[in-house]
Amino acid sequence: MKHISLTEINEWDRFYRANFINSLSGFKSATLIGTLKENRQPNLALFSNIFHVGAQPAVIGFVNRPREAAPHTLANIERTGVYTMNLVPEKYIAQAHQSSAKFKIETDEFLASGFSTQFVDKVDAPFVAESIVKYALQLLEIIPVRHNQTFIVLGSVTHVIIDDGLVSNDGFIHLEKANTITSLGIDGYYSTSLQSRYKYAKADEPVVKIV
Amino acid sequence: MKHISLTEINEWDRFYRANFINSLSGFKSATLIGTLKENRQPNLALFSNIFHVGAQPAVIGFVNRPREAAPHTLANIERTGVYTMNLVPEKYIAQAHQSSAKFKIETDEFLASGFSTQFVDKVDAPFVAESIVKYALQLLEIIPVRHNQTFIVLGSVTHVIIDDGLVSNDGFIHLEKANTITSLGIDGYYSTSLQSRYKYAKADEPVVKIV
Repeated sequence: MKHISLTEINEWDRFYRANFINSLSGFKSATLIGTLKENRQPNLALFSNIFHVGAQPAVIGFVNRPREAAPHTLANIERTGVYTMNLVPEKYIAQAHQSSAKFKIETDEFLASGFSTQFVDKVDAPFVAESIVKYALQLLEIIPVRHNQTFIVLGSVTHVIIDDGLVSNDGFIHLEKANTITSLGIDGYYSTSLQSRYKYAKADEPVVKIV
Repeated sequence: MKHISLTEINEWDRFYRANFINSLSGFKSATLIGTLKENRQPNLALFSNIFHVGAQPAVIGFVNRPREAAPHTLANIERTGVYTMNLVPEKYIAQAHQSSAKFKIETDEFLASGFSTQFVDKVDAPFVAESIVKYALQLLEIIPVRHNQTFIVLGSVTHVIIDDGLVSNDGFIHLEKANTITSLGIDGYYSTSLQSRYKYAKADEPVVKIV
């Protein structure tokens, strides 16, 4: 086992460090975020640092890079307060990755990366038609991170569109049946296989498998 | 495809809702967090909402549930400012899940869930000896989330311990070679298979596979 100090990490080439540190914290949920531009043209971009904050109210967060690196999605959310998150099926990985390119503001990223928009009553942001697990959010709060100019964006879930066959009797969503990918680092994409679900853990009782 | 409104979500049984909303945002990085109690006894608990905030400085965040639901880790980090994050190999899933039980404050969760401590010079928190990808953090900031009494905890990476064979020439960490699991929802654990890595995406250029 190798020990790596902060001094060593700071001396690395910046691309090596970015790959390493982005991978270090483990698997993430690559997610396409759909918004509307000021002229109501659809905007789409890939994000991977998505996290669950709470179920009641249903709050989900994501990390937006510094404004100069990733300006469009953040500006749209600030203006409209509405956005969609769309999980990515395995066969669309390459297209999803392409949506992470820096497009000009006038480009329709749905078209440029080969996805179709889907609009739903009362949600003023585009869903990705090709995704079979997707949800809309109302912006709650944008928290600027003072340590590195990123932003933590928190939103509450207002609408879910899902293939009903993925949801088990207790509410668990079998994303592996949707071939939803998980991502690693800046550019790695993985398929998954369910190993186990376990009952709520209790001190002094052995672990019990659900599946 | 089923459409689900917020009204419907709010009417669900709370366990169904918790399973559904926790799964909805996709795959996560189940991670054991090691800390020291006031009496210097080791503390260990499983967290899954871990996210990358930046590579330079190397900042990683996690979500801590409300204080009454998950008090020990947060209190230890507040007091010591130091904690370790340890990725979980597949063969230790059941033990890792067990560490999420509500143990009494006097319990050594390493012992109770069958893990061994590993201490390293200058890091005042225990690593999980069984993990082959792990890192120590210095607390940067605890952000209370006003919408639901959770906390977003940001830390900077100070020390990494890793099996060197997992790291590719460009810094990407092949966690699948470490059999590191990804988690879904409250209680689901998955193994992964690498599908692809892609070059940095550029507008007007096709997607190019690295592997």
